[in-house]
Amino acid sequence: MIPTRKVADLPTPALVVDAEALDHNIETMRAALPGAKLRPHVKAHKCTSLARRQAEAGHHGFTCATIRECEGMVAAGLGQDLMLANEVLDASRLGALVAGGARVTLAVDSVETVDAAARGGVREVIIDVNVGLPRCGCPPDRAGELADLARERGLRVRGVMGYEGHVMIVEDGAERAAQCRQSMELLVAAAADVGGELISAGGTGTYDCNPWATEIQAGSYALMDAQYGRQGHPFRQAVFVLASVISSAPEWSVADAGLKAFGMDHGNPELPGSDVWFCSDEHTTFSPPRKVGDRVLLVPGHVDPTMAYHERLYLFSGEDVVDTWPIDLRWW
Amino acid sequence: MIPTRKVADLPTPALVVDAEALDHNIETMRAALPGAKLRPHVKAHKCTSLARRQAEAGHHGFTCATIRECEGMVAAGLGQDLMLANEVLDASRLGALVAGGARVTLAVDSVETVDAAARGGVREVIIDVNVGLPRCGCPPDRAGELADLARERGLRVRGVMGYEGHVMIVEDGAERAAQCRQSMELLVAAAADVGGELISAGGTGTYDCNPWATEIQAGSYALMDAQYGRQGHPFRQAVFVLASVISSAPEWSVADAGLKAFGMDHGNPELPGSDVWFCSDEHTTFSPPRKVGDRVLLVPGHVDPTMAYHERLYLFSGEDVVDTWPIDLRWW
Repeated sequence: MIPTRKVADLPTPALVVDAEALDHNIETMRAALPGAKLRPHVKAHKCTSLARRQAEAGHHGFTCATIRECEGMVAAGLGQDLMLANEVLDASRLGALVAGGARVTLAVDSVETVDAAARGGVREVIIDVNVGLPRCGCPPDRAGELADLARERGLRVRGVMGYEGHVMIVEDGAERAAQCRQSMELLVAAAADVGGELISAGGTGTYDCNPWATEIQAGSYALMDAQYGRQGHPFRQAVFVLASVISSAPEWSVADAGLKAFGMDHGNPELPGSDVWFCSDEHTTFSPPRKVGDRVLLVPGHVDPTMAYHERLYLFSGEDVVDTWPIDLRWW
Repeated sequence: MIPTRKVADLPTPALVVDAEALDHNIETMRAALPGAKLRPHVKAHKCTSLARRQAEAGHHGFTCATIRECEGMVAAGLGQDLMLANEVLDASRLGALVAGGARVTLAVDSVETVDAAARGGVREVIIDVNVGLPRCGCPPDRAGELADLARERGLRVRGVMGYEGHVMIVEDGAERAAQCRQSMELLVAAAADVGGELISAGGTGTYDCNPWATEIQAGSYALMDAQYGRQGHPFRQAVFVLASVISSAPEWSVADAGLKAFGMDHGNPELPGSDVWFCSDEHTTFSPPRKVGDRVLLVPGHVDPTMAYHERLYLFSGEDVVDTWPIDLRWW
């Protein structure tokens, strides 16, 4: 029998996931959006072992942000219905996945990306519609003609997608719901022009206020982060960076996790009950001080770019490490 | 003969380094701080191939921030004189390197870290002194007694180090020099109490205004970033993230590199001649718009956490890729 590994024995910094919180989050979302109502976005965790848990909960379609995420999901046997919710100019690697028996639906928003899909051997596309976030997506009133073009190129059009990303970060729930409705009115109108069976949209911030989408592309709900934690959703913080206090002064302490352990675009990680001052490459300074050798669980500000920094995560239950999962969908 | 690979054929996003700019930077620093006057910090690039270029320029001592950086440098044959400029609570992996013939000097700033060094089999330490940045380092007036304790534990004390990190980000050169002097007065006084041959300090921001240190721990100078680029140093921007325009609207374009390609703690990457609006996981939105399929070279805001996101860098000269270097010092 392999001796149980203890969280207390992990070298730091270490990316750790609370198994009970993860189970709670997956079950809570499954109850709200069962089966095909949810197309979990793997960019939020980049981990096929975690995606397998989501598949076991009944969600067999997945959303990806990169070609490599698609390749990794197929390699893990999770390629029944992948959507690359992003534009690409060279779809040949996706075409190879399709030729191998995987189902990959590619987002397109321009003549160029429709051509790339057809040239690369992808057979199914979804029309990406701009619903207010200044990013990808064609204007809503252009969606129909783009679908016609795709069909002319021999592609099957599965419907429309539109990411209301500008709405996700609205902290007030009622305001978030109102803005989501505005975005989805644009998407539903485009869907009428495009046809197809899918209206794919949404995320963790709008999973409970977007009845217009036929499927929600939420990803962060499984692990959560400090920003989504402020929105009042029923999901628990599941991912942390475990760090050791390596230095203490009368007014502060320094933990051994920093800029290379945390996505920083949403600000510093949080340490409940403490005040985080700043991060350096391998340090987080915080107060009040603790003893050298103490261990702390830091909450990432933004889960997606945090995951992309780490080789693996340690799944823990209480004091025990119960599994180790590679973060195997990183890079491009 | 292997056909030359073109930059234009690289899949994006790709971390690319201008070979001429890198050579210029290494030569410029070598001229200013030859040989042992510079102890290049590998945390800024995490790449042993690049460290080898620095060694070829005459710098044979290196600074590291993590145990894994030390291990990787030893594995690459660059372990003649490594300094881990950071505190650790378990030095056993460093002790194994020393037992194998590498020279590793470990920073200590407390009784606990002195004990960890002795217990782990490290034989040489440097007293880390706080010179104004609220991070690691003992109070200057405690350095002497910590050195005595280290010697009692059988450790050789090589001197003092103190990182004036709070000074690096001061954009005005004269103010930066004045604040550097204040920090170094503290360090020089501690050095008198400690003894030993090293006064190790500094970085790219103060390499030209810190005559008190016997060696400068600069790292960013080799590749540079947007923040250091504003300080007027004679180093050129050498590292970029090559990205493709995958979507364009009348008012903006979207390139396929985002939060998982850039350290974001110093803000958005820059695109000379353009206005960067924001980054998402795999996108950077900017204006004015360009054509779908155009390629852009984005300048990272902060080089160190940018490097930690990438598997490899492509060294380029003009339109040709001339080498591929793994970023092999990542993780812990």
